[in-house]
Amino acid sequence: MSMKENRRLSLLNSHLLSQFPQVAYDDSLANFRKRTENLNSDLLFSIYFGKVADGLKRMRSIMTSNPLFDKFKELDLSLDQRRERIVQQISAIYFQSGLTYQEDFKSPYKLLELFWSTAEYELALTTKMSVTLLLYGDTIRSFGTEKHIQLAERAYALKDIGSISMTEIGHGSNVPGVETIATYDHSTREFIINSPTATSVKWLVGGVGKTSNMTALFARLIVDNIDRGVHVFAIKIRDSVTHDPMPGIIIGDVGLKTALNGIDNGFLIFKNCRVPYDSLLDKLSSITPEGKFKSSVKSKEKRLGIIISGIIRGRITVVGGTEVHIRKGLTIALRYGALRKQFGKKDGTESSLLDYQSHYFRLIPHLAKMFAIQAGVEYLWALYSSVKAKASVDPECNELNEYHAMLSCMKSISTMYGTAALQDCREACGGHGFLACSALGNIRNEQDCHPTWEGDNMILLQQCGKVILKQVQHVFKGNKITNPDLQYLDVDFEHLKAYKAAFHDRETLLNPRLLIELLEYKVNYYINQTFIALRENSTAYTDATDVWNNSQVHYIQEIAKAYCEYIFASQLIKMVDKLYEKCQSTGNAVKNIFYLYVVERIEKSLSIYVEYALNPGQAKLIRDTELYLCQALKDISVRIIDILGPPDAFLGSVIGESDGQAYSKLISHVEKSEDVYSKPAWLPLLQQIKQRA
Amino acid sequence: MSMKENRRLSLLNSHLLSQFPQVAYDDSLANFRKRTENLNSDLLFSIYFGKVADGLKRMRSIMTSNPLFDKFKELDLSLDQRRERIVQQISAIYFQSGLTYQEDFKSPYKLLELFWSTAEYELALTTKMSVTLLLYGDTIRSFGTEKHIQLAERAYALKDIGSISMTEIGHGSNVPGVETIATYDHSTREFIINSPTATSVKWLVGGVGKTSNMTALFARLIVDNIDRGVHVFAIKIRDSVTHDPMPGIIIGDVGLKTALNGIDNGFLIFKNCRVPYDSLLDKLSSITPEGKFKSSVKSKEKRLGIIISGIIRGRITVVGGTEVHIRKGLTIALRYGALRKQFGKKDGTESSLLDYQSHYFRLIPHLAKMFAIQAGVEYLWALYSSVKAKASVDPECNELNEYHAMLSCMKSISTMYGTAALQDCREACGGHGFLACSALGNIRNEQDCHPTWEGDNMILLQQCGKVILKQVQHVFKGNKITNPDLQYLDVDFEHLKAYKAAFHDRETLLNPRLLIELLEYKVNYYINQTFIALRENSTAYTDATDVWNNSQVHYIQEIAKAYCEYIFASQLIKMVDKLYEKCQSTGNAVKNIFYLYVVERIEKSLSIYVEYALNPGQAKLIRDTELYLCQALKDISVRIIDILGPPDAFLGSVIGESDGQAYSKLISHVEKSEDVYSKPAWLPLLQQIKQRA
Repeated sequence: MSMKENRRLSLLNSHLLSQFPQVAYDDSLANFRKRTENLNSDLLFSIYFGKVADGLKRMRSIMTSNPLFDKFKELDLSLDQRRERIVQQISAIYFQSGLTYQEDFKSPYKLLELFWSTAEYELALTTKMSVTLLLYGDTIRSFGTEKHIQLAERAYALKDIGSISMTEIGHGSNVPGVETIATYDHSTREFIINSPTATSVKWLVGGVGKTSNMTALFARLIVDNIDRGVHVFAIKIRDSVTHDPMPGIIIGDVGLKTALNGIDNGFLIFKNCRVPYDSLLDKLSSITPEGKFKSSVKSKEKRLGIIISGIIRGRITVVGGTEVHIRKGLTIALRYGALRKQFGKKDGTESSLLDYQSHYFRLIPHLAKMFAIQAGVEYLWALYSSVKAKASVDPECNELNEYHAMLSCMKSISTMYGTAALQDCREACGGHGFLACSALGNIRNEQDCHPTWEGDNMILLQQCGKVILKQVQHVFKGNKITNPDLQYLDVDFEHLKAYKAAFHDRETLLNPRLLIELLEYKVNYYINQTFIALRENSTAYTDATDVWNNSQVHYIQEIAKAYCEYIFASQLIKMVDKLYEKCQSTGNAVKNIFYLYVVERIEKSLSIYVEYALNPGQAKLIRDTELYLCQALKDISVRIIDILGPPDAFLGSVIGESDGQAYSKLISHVEKSEDVYSKPAWLPLLQQIKQRA
Repeated sequence: MSMKENRRLSLLNSHLLSQFPQVAYDDSLANFRKRTENLNSDLLFSIYFGKVADGLKRMRSIMTSNPLFDKFKELDLSLDQRRERIVQQISAIYFQSGLTYQEDFKSPYKLLELFWSTAEYELALTTKMSVTLLLYGDTIRSFGTEKHIQLAERAYALKDIGSISMTEIGHGSNVPGVETIATYDHSTREFIINSPTATSVKWLVGGVGKTSNMTALFARLIVDNIDRGVHVFAIKIRDSVTHDPMPGIIIGDVGLKTALNGIDNGFLIFKNCRVPYDSLLDKLSSITPEGKFKSSVKSKEKRLGIIISGIIRGRITVVGGTEVHIRKGLTIALRYGALRKQFGKKDGTESSLLDYQSHYFRLIPHLAKMFAIQAGVEYLWALYSSVKAKASVDPECNELNEYHAMLSCMKSISTMYGTAALQDCREACGGHGFLACSALGNIRNEQDCHPTWEGDNMILLQQCGKVILKQVQHVFKGNKITNPDLQYLDVDFEHLKAYKAAFHDRETLLNPRLLIELLEYKVNYYINQTFIALRENSTAYTDATDVWNNSQVHYIQEIAKAYCEYIFASQLIKMVDKLYEKCQSTGNAVKNIFYLYVVERIEKSLSIYVEYALNPGQAKLIRDTELYLCQALKDISVRIIDILGPPDAFLGSVIGESDGQAYSKLISHVEKSEDVYSKPAWLPLLQQIKQRA
């Protein structure tokens, strides 16, 4: 019997055995879809996903044809079963992905096909591969030398399962503060690794709890009793045959997390663990045969900065992973919003939730943000290889700095968008959305790791602001600005005060150039305000760190946010142009999405615009145009999500599948449980209470 | 051996057996606390908790002395064990609470002592009691007659476990749309209850899955083939002895939810279930011995409105429950923020996270909102009994309408505050905050039910706006406004445009009267803008429903939000005054909290103020004062939370306990797990993959 037949039979069985009244076929979603035509599905898919489009399709099809990929089955798994399943899943698809070390060296897109498709299924699956390929692999690739290449190759062949031991119990964001020590012993030309304190224990290391046999360890290198700063060592942590921890290493599992429990995050304790000299990834620093430390980068801080910038791919995938989460959440919430009917007109017909302003206003702006993030991610990957190449020659090059600033703000802003989006998707699905079989709680909980890992959002905003302010200071010194995304810089606050936005109705407002100009205005506004704040704080605080730290909120953070919005918008309009060239109506739909993204961003910062640039009438026009655009997009939003959303099998959501049969699926899901109609074993306790008085 | 000794011994054991380096005693939190003095703990506790203060203490002590209340033990429970445990917990404390039907009739505070303390432990525990006492009990009390009283009494004695069957698969917010049918059969003077469609199945009914034996059923009453609208029936759903569903009823469990899995939400399917006439709660409507329907309220809609307004206590407890969640989240996040150190000054000393502007700015405003909600809840309960008494005489009285408006906006706004607060608390605790043993993920997930149940937030904002706009129309007709919280109403937009806020520095800004005036301004601003929007939409749409529905976002919703903020602030200043009277320094601390609440609310709406009332310099002053207040409060915030926060045993958070030994507790928690150092059973699979190529 084929799988399809099997499924049909089990559906039939559940109908026959169901205690529920028969469920009528629900044509609500199908009818909602009919409102829109003229959308070129293939075009939208291929432009939206760009270079990953074909591979994504291929990987989706590999996964959906494998019964291991059944989200509903995962709801009841124990912690251990969850971890086992992810290993099974990787085993089932990794070798079909075509990814190799050599391939990944040439272009990042093959890896992205694998990551994008698996993230659509579950972030833990992607992360499990990411820690070994991307974090462990990239660290070796960036800072190892010839002799280390085979380690990266082994990781890409899954002969080793790698990990990255950076964070400790006591230090997360502050990597220069890690306490683990690697003392060089010249007599044996080994390093002796130790966890001198409880807070120095390597902590929350992905993949280490149960699976990893190799790790890239961040530890302070001590040579001749001198602390040479944090370096990275590729070390074996478990025996290849017995899987026992290597001598001098204790490995444990940190246990249950809010989500991502498929990943076995663990901890590592080192007690005089000896590793050979070649463990040191010695591209930047090495120890001579005479036992002398030498490094091509003199400053400890710079050296660590370079090392960390070598593993930025992880951070890029966080931006991409957030886009996937928003897309999953919206796929469920928009379909449910279309099929779910409540209240309605006086004639008794009920309206789709998605027809209510208060409902679509909560969802449609997230669709715009999803497109904005996607345009931003594409920009990041398009620049990645060339920046990487330049940085390998000159690790302190301007391009890497600018890239770092851009990635930092994108990571923070996109993940903030993501968290808000998933919460709204959850709430928009009401009580059904609170059920585990809606998947929304879990997707929100998975998304919840993104603001924290790969650089805490607050730190990254700061770092982005720092780079931009340095560039501004450069301009103050009479230099030209090199950053292509900051060409509009204007440090004359009087100019800004004199700027009046030139629009007087919806038509004149919906002009891409004007809208981008308004986003440029915001960047300039916050740069100017920040200089005022820094000046004021310089008199309030004596310590430069205090001046800096106390100019973050409302100032430096806002520069980073505004800068990110500018980049998102200027990339998104490029996607619109590409679509428009091939299909006007598809281009127009996405143009509205672009408009909404910018108008909504302006609306959320209206106060700064009303100070100088806009009058109250224009402010009202911004608010009303935002509503207009949401309304204009709600009907087409379901079709868009049909084109871009993951396959049903990846959603694990009875209320969000493409056929719109939410109620019937909800019922059959609930009735499938063994305990649905059973009496509790603790009934005697209940009876005792009731008979007590 | 005493419990304390037991605990000490197990601590000692875990130290001896631990694989970790010894953890030094961490004095960070203790040192942080020393920054503040002059806070009168007892006074703050008693004024903050008001009439519930003593009872809360008593209930906390009953619970903490019982080993059943151990949050960490709950992390590993199965769905079924979780439900069993809650029943055990109720059995252990309910009869000690002193709550009786008669007591609860006199004053709501005894019930609140029970609810507040249990919510501090876990919302599911409170909810489990709430569905039978408050939802089932209040429905009977409000719409039953003499003969039904014994049912409520039985519920309060836990002789019956009640529930409220209102929502159906197909209808949640739209109660008038429920499909369940109760057809009157005059021949037997019975009702025949049926679930005519799959969507009519009663759904997500709390307590029904495994425990309830009684329910208050909402169904359309059919008499003589005429649909008389939705009525309520108190019916027996399970046999008292066998616990089997009664004939004609199928009962099932809906299974796993995102949180609150201690509550057995279930479903009910009716198939020609016959119940006696006396099941009908017949205070408003009845059927004569001749079989004729009669009702004291003619309109179906009004009748249902009255019925639903009879069970508003549930909604009030949502506001209170949200305050508890924020308090729990902040207790953990503020303590952790004080003890967690990262980065720092050039001299090498690390700073507490809570000393960083970007960190405290994310937490301290939530403390202000927590106080605001608490002041609001106290106002709700203070008015409750008198409004209830008036409504029982005249169910359509003005006071009930106003109360309903106030409660509706408070429920929406407080739960929005709560969701945002818990997300920030989670993120503020970084990676440790993502561990299940931090408790933050679970508290956030529990909070997540509040925006949805007891009236969806979007609907409630609308209802509040409706009541206010009706009152405004009343004024247009030349009447005086009765609502004590709307006495400042000004429908002359020209007045508003002419208003200029009279402050020019921080000192003149921090004036309670001026700040409240600014909140009044906001209410008036949105009322005026809404009338403009309604007028515009009246030309854009022909259908009155469309006009209304399309004036929600930016308009009607904002009236409700602004109105709520006004009430919160005007109640919070009363709390400040009460404190100030008895202790100036405590009063001053909470006055800063009041200032922050209002200033932050103004800052978030700055755009509307800058349109007419404030100039750019004043806008900057608002932003900078907001930062100043957060900074002024960060040091004292930990002491405040020490006074108001729940006992350690209720938090279930290794990183948030009062002794500040986060790292040592984290380690001993993780090492307690059986699987911490074990190899996975699926090791062969892993080895197979690694040896594959």
